[in-house]
Amino acid sequence: MVINQSLVGAVLAARASTEIGQIYGARHGIMGILREDFIDLREPSVAQLECVARTPSSALGSVRRKPTAEDCARIFAILKKRDVRYFFYIGGNDSAETVLIVNEEAKREDFDLRCFHIPKTIDNDLRGNDHTPGYGSAARFVALAFMGDDLDNRAMGGVKINVVMGRHAGFLTAASALARVNPGDGPHLIYVPERPFDLNVFCADVQRVMASEGRCVVAVSEGIVDKDGVAIAAKLAAVGETDSHGNIQLSGTGALGDLLAQGIKTRAKIGRVRADTFGYLQRSFPGVASQSDSREARKVGEKAVKFAVGGKYRDGSVAIVRKAGKKYAVDFKRIELNAVAKETRHLPDDFINEAGNGVTQAFIDYAAPLVGDLPEMGRLGLLGN
Amino acid sequence: MVINQSLVGAVLAARASTEIGQIYGARHGIMGILREDFIDLREPSVAQLECVARTPSSALGSVRRKPTAEDCARIFAILKKRDVRYFFYIGGNDSAETVLIVNEEAKREDFDLRCFHIPKTIDNDLRGNDHTPGYGSAARFVALAFMGDDLDNRAMGGVKINVVMGRHAGFLTAASALARVNPGDGPHLIYVPERPFDLNVFCADVQRVMASEGRCVVAVSEGIVDKDGVAIAAKLAAVGETDSHGNIQLSGTGALGDLLAQGIKTRAKIGRVRADTFGYLQRSFPGVASQSDSREARKVGEKAVKFAVGGKYRDGSVAIVRKAGKKYAVDFKRIELNAVAKETRHLPDDFINEAGNGVTQAFIDYAAPLVGDLPEMGRLGLLGN
Repeated sequence: MVINQSLVGAVLAARASTEIGQIYGARHGIMGILREDFIDLREPSVAQLECVARTPSSALGSVRRKPTAEDCARIFAILKKRDVRYFFYIGGNDSAETVLIVNEEAKREDFDLRCFHIPKTIDNDLRGNDHTPGYGSAARFVALAFMGDDLDNRAMGGVKINVVMGRHAGFLTAASALARVNPGDGPHLIYVPERPFDLNVFCADVQRVMASEGRCVVAVSEGIVDKDGVAIAAKLAAVGETDSHGNIQLSGTGALGDLLAQGIKTRAKIGRVRADTFGYLQRSFPGVASQSDSREARKVGEKAVKFAVGGKYRDGSVAIVRKAGKKYAVDFKRIELNAVAKETRHLPDDFINEAGNGVTQAFIDYAAPLVGDLPEMGRLGLLGN
Repeated sequence: MVINQSLVGAVLAARASTEIGQIYGARHGIMGILREDFIDLREPSVAQLECVARTPSSALGSVRRKPTAEDCARIFAILKKRDVRYFFYIGGNDSAETVLIVNEEAKREDFDLRCFHIPKTIDNDLRGNDHTPGYGSAARFVALAFMGDDLDNRAMGGVKINVVMGRHAGFLTAASALARVNPGDGPHLIYVPERPFDLNVFCADVQRVMASEGRCVVAVSEGIVDKDGVAIAAKLAAVGETDSHGNIQLSGTGALGDLLAQGIKTRAKIGRVRADTFGYLQRSFPGVASQSDSREARKVGEKAVKFAVGGKYRDGSVAIVRKAGKKYAVDFKRIELNAVAKETRHLPDDFINEAGNGVTQAFIDYAAPLVGDLPEMGRLGLLGN
């Protein structure tokens, strides 16, 4: 929801720099360079850019393509022709890997291209970062969704399973815990990819919550895996669709939620069981961006340009570091590309409870300032009845 | 999202009436009466009630139970014991039917109980109403979701199918059209239960949009039916779960979206196809209530009490009537219970396009004031490129 804050942060910093001339926005990442499909980013007014900054989903489009050596050679020919000397690329660990590859190839070819990665992923799974732009807003969506859905479950009863995005890391699913305000509030169970998922244990957990609360709200990561590390959702996929970074499709289907609901219905013999898969709304729903996330995403884009134009660094990524102290505050530092590319970061052990079906107070303390204040929910049941 | 506005409107009007003493809130509808599970609605402060009014999902809980003659006899015994003479019930056509049954039984038993239905359904399918409380806010959620999701599809490409709530009426699915601002904006195709759905026609429609736009966003009602009137989702349901009003479960599963995505993948040979089912977020997500919907929901609750205490009517429902004229304005009138109970209202023919895969300007004109102003989405592609 804040990716365009980073874009606009970088564009405005580049406009302000005397070192930078033309600013090209490549549509759909490296595909846009290969096709020479560019947008002139000096053209839009500041007001137009500010409107774009507030708008979810990459205004330049997206791509899932890992560049080959031949891609890089073509890219360099095009960049040289247009005298492009700075390459900024916004995204997660796969995008950082793309920057790393482009950077290595540029060095090999002795092309003086400054290559910078600008972090953005709702999965919050970049190493070297306290957290990533995009996470706080998606986590806010998830927390709000669970606040509303928990009230819906209170009204309707039964078991409600919500499948949350997160391929390998459970940060976004864990954010569902921020929805809890009063005793008894859901989600009552939270399952993340960092712990093996067992359908029998899951059913026993749900039955225990049903016995004590009379209802049960569950948060499940789309990326939950069995004891052998195989994604439950991947086992369900009839057609194993995979991108060039090696990622299997997990989102954009309700199959995992339906499997879990069916499991509860048949094994635990509970009547009303529903499953929702929050899907792409988690990253694209307008108007729920977290304030700190918006601010930091802007800053990360600016910083990337500042690190690049100083002449001190020829490559790198921008990392968000949390300052020590009670009050939430962050710093931005330049880190090496290989400190962030490719491999993913996981939920630390001290953020997951012992039973592997919930999160700890340490996680709540970590995530709450990223998400920001949440609205107060009114309940009649709390008024002495 | 606004059901508690109606509750609070009725409670505050009842508190202001000299005719009314104790005010009982029955938890989970008639189940709460049968179990004598009541909340004292004179107890909460106005500030507490106002917080409840802003909170989604019925604060008194919900039930899906059609009262039998025996239920009614027990209900009357309990109400008489507590000297309850007014019965207000919030909900859709099934709830109106419950009020109708209670009213008929009360008349038969010569029990002077004033029975009033207070309309609320996100489906907008109550006869006798221009629109129903709840619809504008859920429609706002759907419109916002499609605004964000259309940008996501622009960035990612391919086909995106979103399944929207609506058992028999396509009003909520049709509201996706409000997301369109500029030429080329999605949703490009909209399918409602009022027209027979054919998978082959659907695939041909999607292929045509892909050829012209290079991408395709689709809104599909969960209640779409085949040429014999059988719900596509019901055919998929392994276990046919049905409530006592005779409704089959359509929500809380991703099966319909997955079926349609699979159909496109295999028949139309399109690579990236994703399906999301918006699910219960449409009625419970906090913070997106439409202003006019909130205001009208409050008013409908107030009016029900005013119609009931005057002595003029012993039963009825409150209907929203749109005033003639350019500027949007409404009136509230008392209508007969049998004018609203049981049967559903459908999208009028002039709201659906000829091909049966979209809506008309007449629908947009109808729905826009109910949803309210939507945020401006910024796009670089519109800046002359």
